[in-house]
Amino acid sequence: MSGTTALACHGYFEELSRVSTSNPASMASRRSPSQTAGVESGVRGWGENIFSRMDTAGTPSLFTKKGLQAAMMDWAMRDEHFKTQLFRFVDVLPSLTSAGEVSRHLKEYLGDEQVNLSAGLRTALKAATGASWLFGAGVKAQVTAMARQFMLGDDSKEIVATLRRLHDEDIAFTVDVLGETVVSETEADNYAARYLDLLSLLAGETSKWPQPCKSNVSSRGTIPQLNLSVKISALYSQIHPADPETAIEKTSSRLRPILRKAKELGAFINFDMESYALKDLTLHLFKTIFSEPEFASEPACGLAMQAYLKDSEADLKGVISWARLQRHHVTVRLVKGAYWDYETVIAQQKEWPIPVFGLKAETDANFEKLSVILLENADAVEAAFGTHNVRSIAHVLAQADRLGVNHRDFEFQMLYGMAEPIKSALLQLGCRLREYCPVGELLPGMAYLVRRLLENTSNEGFLANTFAKGASREQLLRDPNAMVAEQEPRHRTSPATNPMFRNEPPIDFTISAEREKILAAIRELRQQIGRKHPLVINNKYISTRDWLPSTNPANQNEIVGYAAQASIAEAEAALAAARAAQPDWARTPAGERSAILEKVASLMRRDKAALCALEILESGKNWTEADADVAEAIDFCNFYAAEMRKLGKPQRTQQVPGESNLQHWLPRGIGVIIAPWNFPLAILTGMSAAAIAAGNAVLIKPSDQTPVIASRLMDLFIEAGLPAGVANFVTGPGSTVGAHLVAHPKVDFVAFTGSKEVGLKIWETAGRTPPGQVGLKKMICEMGGKNSAIVDSDADLDEAVSGCIASAFGYQGHKCSELSRLIVLADNYDKFMERFIAAAASMRIGPAEMPGNVIGPVISREAQQRILKTIAIGRTEAKLAWQGQIPENPNACYVPPTIFTDVPPASRLFREEIFGPILSVTKAKDFDEALALANDSEFALTGGCYSRSPVNIERAKAELVCGNLYINRGITGAIVERQPFGGFKMSGGGTKAGGREYLQNFLLPRVITENCLRRGFAAAEE
Amino acid sequence: MSGTTALACHGYFEELSRVSTSNPASMASRRSPSQTAGVESGVRGWGENIFSRMDTAGTPSLFTKKGLQAAMMDWAMRDEHFKTQLFRFVDVLPSLTSAGEVSRHLKEYLGDEQVNLSAGLRTALKAATGASWLFGAGVKAQVTAMARQFMLGDDSKEIVATLRRLHDEDIAFTVDVLGETVVSETEADNYAARYLDLLSLLAGETSKWPQPCKSNVSSRGTIPQLNLSVKISALYSQIHPADPETAIEKTSSRLRPILRKAKELGAFINFDMESYALKDLTLHLFKTIFSEPEFASEPACGLAMQAYLKDSEADLKGVISWARLQRHHVTVRLVKGAYWDYETVIAQQKEWPIPVFGLKAETDANFEKLSVILLENADAVEAAFGTHNVRSIAHVLAQADRLGVNHRDFEFQMLYGMAEPIKSALLQLGCRLREYCPVGELLPGMAYLVRRLLENTSNEGFLANTFAKGASREQLLRDPNAMVAEQEPRHRTSPATNPMFRNEPPIDFTISAEREKILAAIRELRQQIGRKHPLVINNKYISTRDWLPSTNPANQNEIVGYAAQASIAEAEAALAAARAAQPDWARTPAGERSAILEKVASLMRRDKAALCALEILESGKNWTEADADVAEAIDFCNFYAAEMRKLGKPQRTQQVPGESNLQHWLPRGIGVIIAPWNFPLAILTGMSAAAIAAGNAVLIKPSDQTPVIASRLMDLFIEAGLPAGVANFVTGPGSTVGAHLVAHPKVDFVAFTGSKEVGLKIWETAGRTPPGQVGLKKMICEMGGKNSAIVDSDADLDEAVSGCIASAFGYQGHKCSELSRLIVLADNYDKFMERFIAAAASMRIGPAEMPGNVIGPVISREAQQRILKTIAIGRTEAKLAWQGQIPENPNACYVPPTIFTDVPPASRLFREEIFGPILSVTKAKDFDEALALANDSEFALTGGCYSRSPVNIERAKAELVCGNLYINRGITGAIVERQPFGGFKMSGGGTKAGGREYLQNFLLPRVITENCLRRGFAAAEE
Repeated sequence: MSGTTALACHGYFEELSRVSTSNPASMASRRSPSQTAGVESGVRGWGENIFSRMDTAGTPSLFTKKGLQAAMMDWAMRDEHFKTQLFRFVDVLPSLTSAGEVSRHLKEYLGDEQVNLSAGLRTALKAATGASWLFGAGVKAQVTAMARQFMLGDDSKEIVATLRRLHDEDIAFTVDVLGETVVSETEADNYAARYLDLLSLLAGETSKWPQPCKSNVSSRGTIPQLNLSVKISALYSQIHPADPETAIEKTSSRLRPILRKAKELGAFINFDMESYALKDLTLHLFKTIFSEPEFASEPACGLAMQAYLKDSEADLKGVISWARLQRHHVTVRLVKGAYWDYETVIAQQKEWPIPVFGLKAETDANFEKLSVILLENADAVEAAFGTHNVRSIAHVLAQADRLGVNHRDFEFQMLYGMAEPIKSALLQLGCRLREYCPVGELLPGMAYLVRRLLENTSNEGFLANTFAKGASREQLLRDPNAMVAEQEPRHRTSPATNPMFRNEPPIDFTISAEREKILAAIRELRQQIGRKHPLVINNKYISTRDWLPSTNPANQNEIVGYAAQASIAEAEAALAAARAAQPDWARTPAGERSAILEKVASLMRRDKAALCALEILESGKNWTEADADVAEAIDFCNFYAAEMRKLGKPQRTQQVPGESNLQHWLPRGIGVIIAPWNFPLAILTGMSAAAIAAGNAVLIKPSDQTPVIASRLMDLFIEAGLPAGVANFVTGPGSTVGAHLVAHPKVDFVAFTGSKEVGLKIWETAGRTPPGQVGLKKMICEMGGKNSAIVDSDADLDEAVSGCIASAFGYQGHKCSELSRLIVLADNYDKFMERFIAAAASMRIGPAEMPGNVIGPVISREAQQRILKTIAIGRTEAKLAWQGQIPENPNACYVPPTIFTDVPPASRLFREEIFGPILSVTKAKDFDEALALANDSEFALTGGCYSRSPVNIERAKAELVCGNLYINRGITGAIVERQPFGGFKMSGGGTKAGGREYLQNFLLPRVITENCLRRGFAAAEE
Repeated sequence: MSGTTALACHGYFEELSRVSTSNPASMASRRSPSQTAGVESGVRGWGENIFSRMDTAGTPSLFTKKGLQAAMMDWAMRDEHFKTQLFRFVDVLPSLTSAGEVSRHLKEYLGDEQVNLSAGLRTALKAATGASWLFGAGVKAQVTAMARQFMLGDDSKEIVATLRRLHDEDIAFTVDVLGETVVSETEADNYAARYLDLLSLLAGETSKWPQPCKSNVSSRGTIPQLNLSVKISALYSQIHPADPETAIEKTSSRLRPILRKAKELGAFINFDMESYALKDLTLHLFKTIFSEPEFASEPACGLAMQAYLKDSEADLKGVISWARLQRHHVTVRLVKGAYWDYETVIAQQKEWPIPVFGLKAETDANFEKLSVILLENADAVEAAFGTHNVRSIAHVLAQADRLGVNHRDFEFQMLYGMAEPIKSALLQLGCRLREYCPVGELLPGMAYLVRRLLENTSNEGFLANTFAKGASREQLLRDPNAMVAEQEPRHRTSPATNPMFRNEPPIDFTISAEREKILAAIRELRQQIGRKHPLVINNKYISTRDWLPSTNPANQNEIVGYAAQASIAEAEAALAAARAAQPDWARTPAGERSAILEKVASLMRRDKAALCALEILESGKNWTEADADVAEAIDFCNFYAAEMRKLGKPQRTQQVPGESNLQHWLPRGIGVIIAPWNFPLAILTGMSAAAIAAGNAVLIKPSDQTPVIASRLMDLFIEAGLPAGVANFVTGPGSTVGAHLVAHPKVDFVAFTGSKEVGLKIWETAGRTPPGQVGLKKMICEMGGKNSAIVDSDADLDEAVSGCIASAFGYQGHKCSELSRLIVLADNYDKFMERFIAAAASMRIGPAEMPGNVIGPVISREAQQRILKTIAIGRTEAKLAWQGQIPENPNACYVPPTIFTDVPPASRLFREEIFGPILSVTKAKDFDEALALANDSEFALTGGCYSRSPVNIERAKAELVCGNLYINRGITGAIVERQPFGGFKMSGGGTKAGGREYLQNFLLPRVITENCLRRGFAAAEE
């Protein structure tokens, strides 16, 4: 978050946009002054008209300020922290199974000392302490009542009664099905079934209605009474940005029965628009499926478009062109967009361009611009304007007047339970009005409620300004274009913590060109596969007698390359080269050393697709994991370079007159880098780059499993201009070459990432100081993990399920950070496990090169056999709850992803690192036991906790023993600088790769004190 | 230095002072407005009078701006950096033995790219590159000529000729003998002899003069023609602040022959005033010796007093009272003070109150105030006003008028070669004038020259303002009191680098009350000596079966105390206590933990004298060393407490919206602290305090040699409120108890300071990970040193001799930082060694409790025998150049301090750590060889270089391999935070005690990532 202010929330129907200056033809913005003046006076006319009718209709119920509920809403508008706490409480509420739990959470959220409460609220809350049972029940009833204002519930009778009431008020409807995030194919099936059921239910009702709803009658005729809004994300659980084809196929197959039924019933199907990541997919699916002959003219259909997206104008024009071409008069529901916070945050986290406009007024302006486009194309598309903003509405009416569009030939849409006075005014004016009516259970509806509450309390929201803050009509009706011109552009990115470093963004695989690059790189790699990769000593390539093949684990017949196998003599030659090169390298200014690493980073960026292809084929990483490994390698180069630039400048230890005291950092000398295969580029690059940036010379000993990727790194070092001997590449057997180098008196430090067994052995070797060794041998040691996540009884299961799936099975569990022990609170256990196993069962397994596959092969035949053996042992220790289906391919090293439950703490399953796609689940009776179970391990690397209890979150932060703790998110995927990575106990020496202190491991501090007084004369500061 | 501006230089006769507001009776300041007005008009009158006479006299030669010399002075006034470089060049010049050397240094100082040169100077300097020989010689001649303006040289004939010339101009003289800093008793003898010779020489001359100089004739009669200024620091080389008695005795014994001769010749003896540290001693000596019957009435005498000192008013009144009492009409030479920079810097370095006024105008005002006091007491003391400031002079004359003092009854003093027009004006006005005439060689005179140059170029100096900058008479004659009122108080202390930490000041032993405290504490300690000091487990005192005595190494019959001897069982009990206590301690907020350590620091401050007494008796440290150890212990507590307060606040790793990423630090667990005896309090406290501050629990295992001091630390931990079990005190044999604990699987880290042999063994033990051990055992390891200092051919020998003596022999060489190998450039070798050995021979050796003793006993009989054996071996390897005389005391463990020369690099003397008062000296033919010799060691702890070659200083900084490098100062005495201490190679693991990163050794980093997005709503920053 930037600073201490929350990102402003723009409500669902309440958003905005600057007219694109890149399109000079755009009429809404580039209208002539006289035209603007004419339209503006029309807007004001309609606006005043609507306002005067609203005055007689009164204030919407939410703003009447009676009772505790209204007091809370009022306070939420005044105090940002209270609002956060209140809405978080509302969010967790439905998951709380007892009044005592409700009371506890209420106290945790609102009893927090940081929460500023009005006197009345404070008193009410204190009372809760006394009679939690009573109070808890009361609060739940209050919030349920609040939710009922915005949702129709899940009782069929109530739903149809409400829709009938609307019908009687001349208000049309569209029904939306509220639901949890779809995390499995079972859930997608259920969702699709609910759409079908709902169609039947609603058709049964609407067919009874004597005449069409007035709002469904236009000058062209009658529109379907039955209108259903569907969400694409509900129809397929495994949507993968890199594999839109599969997503289209899967969603289509669940959509077709719905469309058929709609056709049969004469219903209207609308596609809702969700997050930006799904936008192109949704547009594509809409155009594809409604181009299918079966659906080319029926059912009636439409889709929503979000004016807050910078893409929206182009997308709208695309839809209009498509509709003209197809001669399909579809409806476009123009909204402003409801995920502004989310889109902004996610883009910033990924360092992607922010897809939404920064200013509320920009979105409002864009809404007006798109309104004009819709009205101008009324022949091709039907317009539905989804807004509660009187200015936006008045603008539509004024533009319709200007363009001669009949006011009955478009509709307005508003949310059920909101903005009643505006609805009343529009009906009085003879406009068509449709309400968006969510149905479903309270629990999954809570996200919807929170969004409504945010909208109603937003500082920038039209409703709050109108009904709660008493803004003047003049203000409320202002031209948003004028407001854009007045406002400072919003800071889209938060101020950088570190001006010298930015993370490499992940590839946005929703962009087809990016997908094409990877496919092309895989093809290209296959054409030059199977080469020999020699040693590198003094920047010279040295062949060896023996060569070890490195194979594709998804097809062991495919040899990715051969690695040279160094002898002791060659290792000694490499060491001699490093020793010869190091003094000059140490003298090279830190900035020059850093520049070479930055060059390596830019070469990796250039070669990103090729490196990803290698990762995919040699290490069996899927596309996303492959990209993440390359991006992390780039980050390591840039981050350590930036850090070394800082450390390269001596730091003053203390300000004292007459004496200069500066701390410098010296390189340690010669290091051996021993890297694993699981992050074949990133970890190798990280340890090497840190050592090299610090002015050391290194011997790089990569894993036998991924020498080809490693040799690419060495090539890039040379290409970037690293002087001969500074990095030397020594593939070969760890037991001989590795052991020889680690024990060598001429080696000053060892940077190791790998297993506990090897780590401890190297640590012990480093402890011995053989004759001829210059100093104490430094060891940087990262070992394994046996990581836990706790799922608390109030956890958000939508997040917990998908986060734990990704953490447990991502890259086949081949991560030291992987989730190995899942600890689920008893209260939540059955519910969570049902969804969790279903989600696991939905994962796609197969070769990593197929972009939709989440699970690929394990790294090697040996790993496969070892893990299978562990599974066999596991069957004797615990209950095998689920096991995945793997492709039948004798040449591939697949292991079925497996979930064990009832795993006892004493079992090997619970205690030993597996490093494969095996998850142990243990039930905990309470949070104390959960913490104890999580901490019952010899490792302390990563850990996680999904909870919505502030107290339990604080306990997890204080008590979970691990190097990297993640709250309410997955426990893998640490990002350089953001999540310095590493653990302790048997997980490592307490170093933090990608952290601010990491370079110190490769350096020695040196303090230089200079007396600046001469003859009693203190010169100016030296 | 504060910021980038140099401390302003106030010239010798050119200083200033605010009237003391604490003395309402003080007349100069609290004069009534009418009186002020009257005096001020008198001042202006006299001022205008003087100025008008000066106008006819012209500009002093230095400001005539002709030739290179004048161009340089002019440029120096414009560019601060150039001035520094120029004056440093002037400073080094006399030590340069060839024109090539002169040219090289000139280029190094003024060819520096940072030096901003005028075009003319740049050209001249470029020319120097071509013909260094010629140019070098030319420059030396130029500077010599410049020096000749201010000094009379060392040729007897020239001296007497100059004095005769002055006599003929009616100017009286006082002669000052320029000389090197007196670093040995030989040099003090020589200095005294020169005073005697000079008296004879001058008496021979003055006796020939036909009549007394007019300036020596007052209304009361004739003053001695022969006037000699003596410096107390020249008369004894071993002045020790804690032992003024010896200083009085030694200086007196060298003074008496001088006074006798003066008496015999009718000469006048003036005591010059030097640094503030010598001020009380000088005053005391003056009063003492001139109270001796022999000198109670003769010779005529006087002393200088410095108006820039805040003490000066009280001191002046003390002298006047004494003179009245003694009926001895002494002369007081009132000057402003010449060491403003030095006094300010030294006080700031030591965190002592700054003894001088901050503002130039304050000193000027104080000069006026003291002038009035002198004039008012003209009956008791004779006034001599030493100033070149027309305002100060005019003020004297105006006040004399007001008080009715005859203008012939006081004199003015000015420096030879300066302010000629003012002298001329005063003579015209009939005032008495004396010139201060330095005689002596160019080399030792260079400091004097630099001071004069600084005075002439000072921004605040009267002369520069008058003659070079053309200030108006109005400005020049302004009342300094008015200027003080207008000016902002000067910042006396530089802005703190670390607002949370200040170093503990050393005791100022010049204050007699401070000396008394130590003496009393030693007496008190002796009354309770010989007690038993039990173990401490869980804050309970536990006695053991065996007790080991700890004796005074200066008298082994004196048992300072008995240390309990833990068994393995007791060690296990202590470990169990630590393990039980640690979790709660870890949870205690960092601020509370820090507060306890800050309390320990304040208790140590309270008990400082008692702790010093223990150090003196148990470890044989002299007073200064004892105090330094206690102060460092206080610093460690406060510094680590402050650092932990910082680390206690989690640090954001990266600013990213929607996610909070914070790095926390966790304690490591249980540590064993193994400390040496040589800094029995500081090192033990440092390692313990760091571990404890970080939230660990510790087992403290002090050295067998100093358990009593260690047990005092444990007492203070308990008194300060450290919870039971957090620190446990386990004295006992290292070979059993120590080894057991180090290898123990329940021990998480070991902090060790001691020998290389033990360190390597512990390092190896820590490398092994026994079953049951939680993590990799962390080892913080500080070992020995074999430290070198290089004395370059252009080194300032005054500084090099005393710095190397202190570094080699301080605390009997019992410091890991001690100077063990002195490498002297051949060019300088003979000269340096002569002074160096003489200085060594002047050191006082004996029991540490006698404050004047610099060298005490070594720590134990065993150490004595070992070191004596090393000396015996050394005799076979090298040349024994000098050996000290030790007291004959069979109960004491003295080792004679010893200097070997011609020490070959292959010898054991050169290679092995001795840890005693033995210094090896090796001659190097050039700087390359010196660096190679210094780096030829398995250790890399401290190092030093004395050089005035900017290039060689940079080379030393870049190439000398050591953890702490000291340029142009001693190589011991690192101060917490200022000089983070520790080395590498076989000196340690690269940790820095007292440095910003030190606490990290006792902590584990932990990163907590929290997803702050809920339902797409990003809350305000968590």
